[in-house]
Amino acid sequence: MALSSALLDQAVDQLATLPGIGRRTAMRLALDLLRRERHEVVRFSEAVRRLREDVMYCSECCNISDRPVCDICANPARDRSLICVVEDIRDVIAIENTRQFKGLYHVLGGVISPMDGIGPDDLHTKELLARIGNGGVAEVVLALGATLEGDTTSFFLHRKLHELGISVSMIARGISVGGDLDQVDEVTLGRSIADRKPYEQSVRR
Amino acid sequence: MALSSALLDQAVDQLATLPGIGRRTAMRLALDLLRRERHEVVRFSEAVRRLREDVMYCSECCNISDRPVCDICANPARDRSLICVVEDIRDVIAIENTRQFKGLYHVLGGVISPMDGIGPDDLHTKELLARIGNGGVAEVVLALGATLEGDTTSFFLHRKLHELGISVSMIARGISVGGDLDQVDEVTLGRSIADRKPYEQSVRR
Repeated sequence: MALSSALLDQAVDQLATLPGIGRRTAMRLALDLLRRERHEVVRFSEAVRRLREDVMYCSECCNISDRPVCDICANPARDRSLICVVEDIRDVIAIENTRQFKGLYHVLGGVISPMDGIGPDDLHTKELLARIGNGGVAEVVLALGATLEGDTTSFFLHRKLHELGISVSMIARGISVGGDLDQVDEVTLGRSIADRKPYEQSVRR
Repeated sequence: MALSSALLDQAVDQLATLPGIGRRTAMRLALDLLRRERHEVVRFSEAVRRLREDVMYCSECCNISDRPVCDICANPARDRSLICVVEDIRDVIAIENTRQFKGLYHVLGGVISPMDGIGPDDLHTKELLARIGNGGVAEVVLALGATLEGDTTSFFLHRKLHELGISVSMIARGISVGGDLDQVDEVTLGRSIADRKPYEQSVRR
């Protein structure tokens, strides 16, 4: 049945375009928004519009940023010879939280996914190769998800970077720290056996 | 860790105000919006803002409507002596889909919930009593959810309507049509036994 209101219909349609939100949930969200004060909904709507209209990307690492060059790229204490390639800003936040990485990042903005029509040219790969071309980079760490798309992207970048004579590494895959063996899937466990390292190198220093 | 962008931060904060959406999901939604064309996000933002700013409510039944009087209330074929009280527009749609009800509706806009600070005056109860006061209504059907809040609201309305000499009924509670007994919760099953009806009245005509 069509709703009694085209306004509500349109809002539900739009909310249902969000990933993971079906029409039933979208209706619940719309009714929640209707119950709020008018100025609250205007603030909500403005925050979404401004995000897309006013967003800037760091001219070096392509991360979302409020400045032409982001805080990490502008930090003189970071190691500029080391670049970690990630999919999006969530990965930058996750890696920064580990406090294990002192280099710079390069945010691709996605991964190669032929199913979704996303090729290398839809990602910030040109910007990465341009950065390498400027010199001063010794190593690129590929830190993409352990998925088919992530692996395809890593393979593509490895080939391109190898041609440029850059040392390319990949973050380790294996069992989680604190994880029990019987909780680990077969592929990961098999890989972690194949990729075993001498004990002295494996123990946390 | 704070995000590198206040714009992103604000959008994530706002998206996370939606019911059932945590900050992690809000970040996923924000990144999805960022990947869209600018005009798509403007359309999204406008649909949400207009819903709240331009919404109208039917002057009779208080349902969301694009017209001063909604299609159902304006329909001369509906039985104006029968009013079904529901919580929100979703219930109107659900009941209309059954094609079992030919009367009018009254949309409360919520249920009494002291925990959330929602009392009778926050709902469209005054409008309901005013409609009854105008005369011509013989029966009010209470069709609220079978929850503590729904029951409280039904009890409140029953008392008020009873004072006005209106016949008040409540939609039946019992086992679902097509349901097996061992799948039904104890309270519902107990209630459906207590509320048993003569066989002749129970069989679908």
